[in-house]
Amino acid sequence: MQRHDHAPRPPHPARARREAELRLHGVNACLAAFAQRPDDLRKLWLTQAKIPAFKPVLAWCVRHRIGYRVVDDEEIARLTESRHHEGVCMALLRREPPSMEHLLAAIPAGKPALLLWLHGVGNPHNLGAILRSAAHFGVTAVLLGDASALSPAAYRVAEGGAEAVPCVAVGDVEHASTVLHRAGFQLAATVVRGGDALYANRLPSRLVLLLGAEGTGLPQSMMDAADVRLRIPGTGAVESLNVSVACALLIAEWARVHA
Amino acid sequence: MQRHDHAPRPPHPARARREAELRLHGVNACLAAFAQRPDDLRKLWLTQAKIPAFKPVLAWCVRHRIGYRVVDDEEIARLTESRHHEGVCMALLRREPPSMEHLLAAIPAGKPALLLWLHGVGNPHNLGAILRSAAHFGVTAVLLGDASALSPAAYRVAEGGAEAVPCVAVGDVEHASTVLHRAGFQLAATVVRGGDALYANRLPSRLVLLLGAEGTGLPQSMMDAADVRLRIPGTGAVESLNVSVACALLIAEWARVHA
Repeated sequence: MQRHDHAPRPPHPARARREAELRLHGVNACLAAFAQRPDDLRKLWLTQAKIPAFKPVLAWCVRHRIGYRVVDDEEIARLTESRHHEGVCMALLRREPPSMEHLLAAIPAGKPALLLWLHGVGNPHNLGAILRSAAHFGVTAVLLGDASALSPAAYRVAEGGAEAVPCVAVGDVEHASTVLHRAGFQLAATVVRGGDALYANRLPSRLVLLLGAEGTGLPQSMMDAADVRLRIPGTGAVESLNVSVACALLIAEWARVHA
Repeated sequence: MQRHDHAPRPPHPARARREAELRLHGVNACLAAFAQRPDDLRKLWLTQAKIPAFKPVLAWCVRHRIGYRVVDDEEIARLTESRHHEGVCMALLRREPPSMEHLLAAIPAGKPALLLWLHGVGNPHNLGAILRSAAHFGVTAVLLGDASALSPAAYRVAEGGAEAVPCVAVGDVEHASTVLHRAGFQLAATVVRGGDALYANRLPSRLVLLLGAEGTGLPQSMMDAADVRLRIPGTGAVESLNVSVACALLIAEWARVHA
């Protein structure tokens, strides 16, 4: 095998810029991102029809010399690689997510707080709907247990929810659960069979909800880390609920008793 | 304009048969349909990989001389016009849905019961997830307020839920609401702003939940027919929840207090 002893080639400037940028689409996702962090805006593409909705954004672009282009639907479909772009695409500076330690330190000790810890929920429809529910009910943060960065499709489905709730990548399960326990959180795994019926007991005030992919469920390491197992009681007519629906029911029950 | 005075041509036999049949796909949707009404099965297509899961269905086909074919993925994609077919397609006799009067007559007087009345929820992802939640929590029936017959995609997403909950088409809003009120039901419209906060009051035991499309909401005639307006309280960080999530939260709250 040939070896190269010289330093690796630096990435091509255009490619390096693309990697430092995040491209969003969808009206609500883009407006929420702009409202949250206008300084991160790098470029805007939109169709003629979307100019009224993005008037404040366009004014900002003019004032701060940010490039924008009025293009047709096909051009936005090409940029976003999606048919569901809603006539707008934004390039934003990609922001480093906070570390879990940093995030936990910002939660007042002893105060009620809810976190989600997802593993294998890759479907952008589900992940987006979960972020939207999390934002609606004031979930403190979402921990992503596998390599899943949020896709542009998940951002769009979240309808702005992805800007309101920080998402943190979690590596080692044992380390993460130790840190969470030390911060006074209980970990609740959601299961389809067995476990305690939701609504039977009052949910803990500092809680991490663990949710896995439909079908495969949670990995054993996360099941082992859980203090309690929760099941959403039902008729048994269907095997389970959609994962974003199950997640919302758990979040809402926590919010009902603690918010 | 040319006029034809002779009787209209009868439809082509193959076309008439297709119209009398419903084609489902998705493993759980097909298995649930077979479990519920094996006599309606007309034909089965499946991939080699799905033979073990469909062994009882294949045995039934052999015993009752129902045609089945083992085909490749492309053939099923062609038949179902979907990439999400999960390796199986079933043709079933289409069944006439019950009338609303028939359906209401079957609910014991004075007993708690929950109905959904949807208008404009056409997205099969959302409609399928709603049927799945309805089946999970034992909703008595789903009323479809616009011309939306269930699509095969909605059947698949429902994961069998469409077999467990009857779906009834509703025409005239005023007539339907009169019939429902006479049967002792209260009608609750779900709204994004205003209305009573869910969880603030105990939900009525005989309840019809009215849900409209995201964005446009309920038509005025349905708003006028409602006895109460319900809002799911939240932070306001997002405009609203996904409609299938909102629906599940309302169903679950009813089930929590009445099931």
